[in-house]
Amino acid sequence: MTAKRTLILLRHGRSEWNELNLFTGWVDVRLNEQGRNEARRGGELLAEAGILPDVLHTSLLSRAIQTANIALDAADRLWIPVTRSWRLNERHYGALQGKDKAQTLEEFGPEQFQLWRRSFDVPPPLLDDDSEFSQVNDVRYAGIDGEVPRTESLKLVIDRLLPYWDSAIVPDLEAGKTVLVTAHGNSLRGLVKHLEGISDEDIAELNIPTGIPLVYELDENNVPTGPGRYLDPEAAAAGAAAVAAQGKK
Amino acid sequence: MTAKRTLILLRHGRSEWNELNLFTGWVDVRLNEQGRNEARRGGELLAEAGILPDVLHTSLLSRAIQTANIALDAADRLWIPVTRSWRLNERHYGALQGKDKAQTLEEFGPEQFQLWRRSFDVPPPLLDDDSEFSQVNDVRYAGIDGEVPRTESLKLVIDRLLPYWDSAIVPDLEAGKTVLVTAHGNSLRGLVKHLEGISDEDIAELNIPTGIPLVYELDENNVPTGPGRYLDPEAAAAGAAAVAAQGKK
Repeated sequence: MTAKRTLILLRHGRSEWNELNLFTGWVDVRLNEQGRNEARRGGELLAEAGILPDVLHTSLLSRAIQTANIALDAADRLWIPVTRSWRLNERHYGALQGKDKAQTLEEFGPEQFQLWRRSFDVPPPLLDDDSEFSQVNDVRYAGIDGEVPRTESLKLVIDRLLPYWDSAIVPDLEAGKTVLVTAHGNSLRGLVKHLEGISDEDIAELNIPTGIPLVYELDENNVPTGPGRYLDPEAAAAGAAAVAAQGKK
Repeated sequence: MTAKRTLILLRHGRSEWNELNLFTGWVDVRLNEQGRNEARRGGELLAEAGILPDVLHTSLLSRAIQTANIALDAADRLWIPVTRSWRLNERHYGALQGKDKAQTLEEFGPEQFQLWRRSFDVPPPLLDDDSEFSQVNDVRYAGIDGEVPRTESLKLVIDRLLPYWDSAIVPDLEAGKTVLVTAHGNSLRGLVKHLEGISDEDIAELNIPTGIPLVYELDENNVPTGPGRYLDPEAAAAGAAAVAAQGKK
């Protein structure tokens, strides 16, 4: 008999750059008011469901950390231990960071646009180190193994994410802890792909809505015992459709 | 040549129970709006002074964690690593927890009142385990060494604080990190007593104002190279006077 293993994934809500319809990636923009409200609602959903995290893992990006702080406050779990890692960061969008999504769609056409957004292993062009949207000189990444990314495909996100999953998150699950991961659209897509064994092709169709906790129960091999369960399924379906429609004016 | 050792102490600001003039101790009340504003100002003072924490230590009480979250947001350092410990908690006020300060003063007289508030080693009466203000069944303390306190003197606070100072905070300082500790009136008085070698008698007169970062530079023995420096000395003097006047109507 093993302890129950519960994993909660929470994608941060709307940020200042969602409003502006810009590619964000590793640029450290904050949540806007709507995003803060989404985070609060996410925490309330956890409290209402009685699914209370024992430990938190976040990316190094402020919008995921704000989401965790607000949600845990709403769920009265501010005091749980927290670990942060760049390996949970959003996909680095390369030269697209800071660019307008609709403008990019118009400039490069729908095929190239979708390829950059949803192909498994085609990264956008490299971001120049001199760009104001580059993170190569950001002190928060001074201690990371290897180089600060200049662009990433979803495949590269998964490559840097899984070592953290194995070394930091799985041990918490195996200790019987309920684990909350607050992160980003693409780092969570990568994690769900791994958990559910989704193919490189089918992952293109997966969209994770913002602000709604997605709960997995895992078996002793850390494989889900069933599909992930959104704590507000109706809002989740609407949210996923909204993500899929992104980039269109 | 050793790395510079910088320690920042930050006492949380006003909480919902300050407003009500109640003894708080380990009761987990939240910051009120003034307290959130104090935390933001604390973070802005750090940013303006260019004294940017590399690592955070907090208590397990929400008002200290909220203070850290808001201050680090204001200083653009949300992403730093954080460790939390019950050993940084406020003094447990025993049977006084949840009691009105002015009423307690009236009921027991100024001598007994000051003894409980400011004597070094006289704890208030034990808090009953059945009290709504007891923490003996609070899940956040399930993992602590030994028993959940039922009352504490300042001496007992220092006894449980110093092992954490030695084992968790000092190693960060010795690694050359700028350390932020967000905690409480009495856990910070205990730490300052230790750092500055203040006597058991004189510590009664030390009042730490809320929301204003107190900065120490430490030598290779972790002894301050000079007195602690408030980043807003004028506000600090006014704040300390206000703390000293507490309990009076």
